[in-house]
Amino acid sequence: MSTTTLRSYVSGAWHTAPDSPEHPARPLYDATTGEEIARISSAGVDFAAALAHGREVGGPALRALTFHQRAALLKALAGHLREHRQELYAVSAGTGATLADSKFDVDGGIGVLLAYASKAKRELPNDIVYVEGAVDPLSRGGTFVGQHLCVPLHGVAVQVNAFNFPVWGPLEKFAPAFLAGVPSLVKPASPTAFLTARLVELIIDSGLLPEGTLQFVAGSLGDTFDHLTGQDLVSFTGSAATAQTLRAHPAIVRNSVRFSAEADSLNFSALGPDGDLDLFVRGLVAEMTVKAGQKCTAIRRAFVPADRVDEVVAAATAALAQVDGMGALASLDQREEVRRSIKALTAAGRIVFGDPDADGPGAHLGPILLVGDPERAEPHEVEAFGPVSTILPYEGTAQLIDYAARGQGSLAGSIVSEDPAFVREVVLGTAPFHGRLLVLNRADAQESTGHGSPLPQLVHGGPGRAGGGEELGGIRGVLHHMQRTAIQADPDSLTAITGRWVAGAARVESDVHPFRKHLEELRPGDTLVAGPRRVTQEDVEHFAEFTGDTFYAHMDAEAAAANPLFGERVAHGYLIVSLAAGLFVDPDPGPVLANFGVDDLRFLTPVKFGDELTVTLTCKQLTPRDSAGYGEVRWDADVTRQDGESVARYDVLTLVAKQ
Amino acid sequence: MSTTTLRSYVSGAWHTAPDSPEHPARPLYDATTGEEIARISSAGVDFAAALAHGREVGGPALRALTFHQRAALLKALAGHLREHRQELYAVSAGTGATLADSKFDVDGGIGVLLAYASKAKRELPNDIVYVEGAVDPLSRGGTFVGQHLCVPLHGVAVQVNAFNFPVWGPLEKFAPAFLAGVPSLVKPASPTAFLTARLVELIIDSGLLPEGTLQFVAGSLGDTFDHLTGQDLVSFTGSAATAQTLRAHPAIVRNSVRFSAEADSLNFSALGPDGDLDLFVRGLVAEMTVKAGQKCTAIRRAFVPADRVDEVVAAATAALAQVDGMGALASLDQREEVRRSIKALTAAGRIVFGDPDADGPGAHLGPILLVGDPERAEPHEVEAFGPVSTILPYEGTAQLIDYAARGQGSLAGSIVSEDPAFVREVVLGTAPFHGRLLVLNRADAQESTGHGSPLPQLVHGGPGRAGGGEELGGIRGVLHHMQRTAIQADPDSLTAITGRWVAGAARVESDVHPFRKHLEELRPGDTLVAGPRRVTQEDVEHFAEFTGDTFYAHMDAEAAAANPLFGERVAHGYLIVSLAAGLFVDPDPGPVLANFGVDDLRFLTPVKFGDELTVTLTCKQLTPRDSAGYGEVRWDADVTRQDGESVARYDVLTLVAKQ
Repeated sequence: MSTTTLRSYVSGAWHTAPDSPEHPARPLYDATTGEEIARISSAGVDFAAALAHGREVGGPALRALTFHQRAALLKALAGHLREHRQELYAVSAGTGATLADSKFDVDGGIGVLLAYASKAKRELPNDIVYVEGAVDPLSRGGTFVGQHLCVPLHGVAVQVNAFNFPVWGPLEKFAPAFLAGVPSLVKPASPTAFLTARLVELIIDSGLLPEGTLQFVAGSLGDTFDHLTGQDLVSFTGSAATAQTLRAHPAIVRNSVRFSAEADSLNFSALGPDGDLDLFVRGLVAEMTVKAGQKCTAIRRAFVPADRVDEVVAAATAALAQVDGMGALASLDQREEVRRSIKALTAAGRIVFGDPDADGPGAHLGPILLVGDPERAEPHEVEAFGPVSTILPYEGTAQLIDYAARGQGSLAGSIVSEDPAFVREVVLGTAPFHGRLLVLNRADAQESTGHGSPLPQLVHGGPGRAGGGEELGGIRGVLHHMQRTAIQADPDSLTAITGRWVAGAARVESDVHPFRKHLEELRPGDTLVAGPRRVTQEDVEHFAEFTGDTFYAHMDAEAAAANPLFGERVAHGYLIVSLAAGLFVDPDPGPVLANFGVDDLRFLTPVKFGDELTVTLTCKQLTPRDSAGYGEVRWDADVTRQDGESVARYDVLTLVAKQ
Repeated sequence: MSTTTLRSYVSGAWHTAPDSPEHPARPLYDATTGEEIARISSAGVDFAAALAHGREVGGPALRALTFHQRAALLKALAGHLREHRQELYAVSAGTGATLADSKFDVDGGIGVLLAYASKAKRELPNDIVYVEGAVDPLSRGGTFVGQHLCVPLHGVAVQVNAFNFPVWGPLEKFAPAFLAGVPSLVKPASPTAFLTARLVELIIDSGLLPEGTLQFVAGSLGDTFDHLTGQDLVSFTGSAATAQTLRAHPAIVRNSVRFSAEADSLNFSALGPDGDLDLFVRGLVAEMTVKAGQKCTAIRRAFVPADRVDEVVAAATAALAQVDGMGALASLDQREEVRRSIKALTAAGRIVFGDPDADGPGAHLGPILLVGDPERAEPHEVEAFGPVSTILPYEGTAQLIDYAARGQGSLAGSIVSEDPAFVREVVLGTAPFHGRLLVLNRADAQESTGHGSPLPQLVHGGPGRAGGGEELGGIRGVLHHMQRTAIQADPDSLTAITGRWVAGAARVESDVHPFRKHLEELRPGDTLVAGPRRVTQEDVEHFAEFTGDTFYAHMDAEAAAANPLFGERVAHGYLIVSLAAGLFVDPDPGPVLANFGVDDLRFLTPVKFGDELTVTLTCKQLTPRDSAGYGEVRWDADVTRQDGESVARYDVLTLVAKQ
């Protein structure tokens, strides 16, 4: 009996491939029972049209939204998927996953959506342009300045996923692209594509996403790559061999298409000479058995001080003997592949736990632990993508660092030690070869998320053999989908472009105090000039006495004269900003709710007794909160003395009510 | 008569290639006189050994220096080269450059060294590790946190340069690599390699650089690429065809070698409907004639409102007729190449100035201006790498943006307009396709560095056809040579790794007030706890009266109660930080010289009348200044109330004397 063929969602419609003798769909099997559960084929999909649909429909729809609006959609999507978790768990069982494995995948994916939604609201503006870094003065007179913008690429993010995380994988690539304003074309690995297909159905059926922002191809990508332009990008997770083929594709090479790969990785965990045996062994066994060791980040190389190998083997084999209910590998093919890798590893080591030839139900394979020779190449180069790790003895920190580097670039490493000097040396020595390093010890063990879990806040990817890609890492992952462009302009033009007032741009003074304006009424450039306020010796002494800040530079003429920076008694910095607030604040109740902070305060010139202070307060940036009755307003505060010299400069942060 | 063969500097020694019938060196010619002035060959260079020398000698030497130490060497190098400027100008004349062209190249290159030296001292720590971004809390209890480090790659930066900037090109690639801690292997384009060879001789002979940090290959790179690893990187400037060949090199693809290319680019300049004709034409003529138009950033497409084409042609041809003393192209081959491109362009346009067939002295070619059909492909695709531009009419902003994108990715664009709305629309519309955009108008014209000048502060590179690379951009260019690694750890381990105290790490209190310690005596984690200080209604009213800050939240019980954030009268934020300073300051003269600023101040919880404040001041980061008697010390200030809740948190910045 023939099962259903998975549908693709392209160019705004569901597409079912014909399953005919000329275009036979490929059967997909339940990893545990071996029964066929679906078929897969993308025959008949017009890939060029799908790319064009993403670029022409999805891209413009996304770019019309602000970062905060995109974030709100991600959050809503997470809520929707959470309601359908049980269904996803059920489908996930067919991939060989245990319930715990399924939660790792499904809940992990939903967690990425939520984390990005939250990061975006905190760290991105409620705007369509991302301004990166400070304004660079490019001239003496201040009429020519530079700043970097990041804007979304106008192409499609083609996302090729691996079989091991059919939910987390697509979502961790989709969320940053969506936030950036770039539509996604998702292609899952076939063996577990039935789960991703269900995920995408749930997403599309939710109606939450603008059309064209998420497309899905079940099956081969056909001639997609031939149609890539310099505005598209590719994120690939899978084997190094496939990564190499795709990376060298003529259209990618010709058009400098951004290509991010996450491929093979011989991750390490190192037990320090002092490290906690139990923590080390628990981490090792977890990484061998969660998802049946089918994690790109799983520990393949377990470095152990030579004199601790016996105790580690004893503890690890005892713990492995207790493992119950580990899931199956994703397919019978996959099990054969793992067995071939184990065979290669045994050329440089011996098995101390498990039997690679034992047949479990379906594609099941029990955990295999080896003790290997770290001077041989195999343990550093052969990735058995299943419940397989090799213990490798080392002598001394330098040797450990050398061995870790022999992986030629990995996703993750972990160091189990309580010794800060050892930890620092190993981290700095292995960091050039790793995308992520975990320090595991008694201080963080309780709360640690463990060796194998990439987190949305932290970069995921590694150099060299691991593919050279970088994903996630909070806002970094968003920026990977954007073009960074340096803008050179006069301050007024730059203000017009970014929507943020920059120093040197026109200031607009009016009869209305800016603190009397609601959020909607304020404009960048709205300015108040207030003062002067003379600062006397009595003020300084009074302030010193009142606050207790009797620092010698304010109170002791002789000591202040000896200070290389002042030469005489000066006013307190905190007095200057307090007086400035006294000048710029409008006291009556009004739209300004609070001053919640100050950024980048610098005292530029000492204020001496008799100096007269003026403050110029200019509205710099508005960040409306879509879900609150107010927004954030950032003001430029410039406190000058009687000769016009700036004595203090800073940003004042306020909350201002909407109308 | 045979001329000298240029020497390579590899593996710590000068190497002169044999010039034999089996290995004939290639002759290089003076661009103006056509006389042979040198020969070039890298025969006999052991490229694998050179890479190994860089990795094993140069890399470790560089990594032993702090960012500030590397910056000091760059500054010294700039001073040394400045002393030899006249000699470099003289050698530069042989490339066809005028004296002005030579200054552009030589002084520009020295300027990059100085700019990076200065940026590094201001924006990088005096340390070997770069900490990127904030600490990410990864757990509720605070025992597990994340942060990103950037560490130098352990490979070699292979830098392939173009013929048009024999000094600036190598130096703009070398400076960021050196600062990052990565040794360089410099390979110049052959036609003008005699100038780069002299530059490198000056550098090596100066003895300023640690051995192995700069190597130089005159001639072919031989089998260098076969030996690249995932720790090496390639920065290429040159033709798109070569970029594609190198990018697809098996070792690059296999090892995910970072590959940054800057290749063909059909840069545009657009005259706005309102734009200043004179500014536009001056920019266009400058870009056509400086370096004889042999700049990757030169204007190839000059977009002009259809109804202004006649006036632009009239003004531009008049200005071009005045041009005197333009330099020659770099070689006769290059002139033939440019003539072929002009021929291709005339299929879609007509020449309105100049004669491509006129023979000048040597490789000279006079400026050629065309008016083209923007609906044809040629003007957007054919880069005539010489004094050649095409005027293209447009109608309306949308069409202009569409035309600009047809270049399929360029290095630079410029917009000549005084109209902020037009400028914003064109900048945001063209930014996805450009690495740098210049807004040129009467406000910045005087101080602008012009369309064609990449600046070390701003990114240089463009997407798609332009190669997809990114260089310079200040510290961004340094980070391109480093591995970004996410660290997950407990706060104490993270502090040990980064050398910076992070929240949650151990605090060390002692009998000695930390303000009594000199820079060398302070350690991250040194802590002072001071307080409590009770805040009364009288304090608040007194402070309000004294400073003038009578904001209703402090003074008006009814209005404060109506405020959604407070509910009752609260203390001023500036009062809280003033009182905190009164608590933590040690008044007597001592090593603390000044509080020069405050960063990231956030008021977290309102302080109500009667609350008692305690401040905990913890040494967070030390930045010794190598050239001053003091350094910067960053302190974490945490102001808490009686229940332990933080009410304000910020960084206090001080200058502290050395012993």
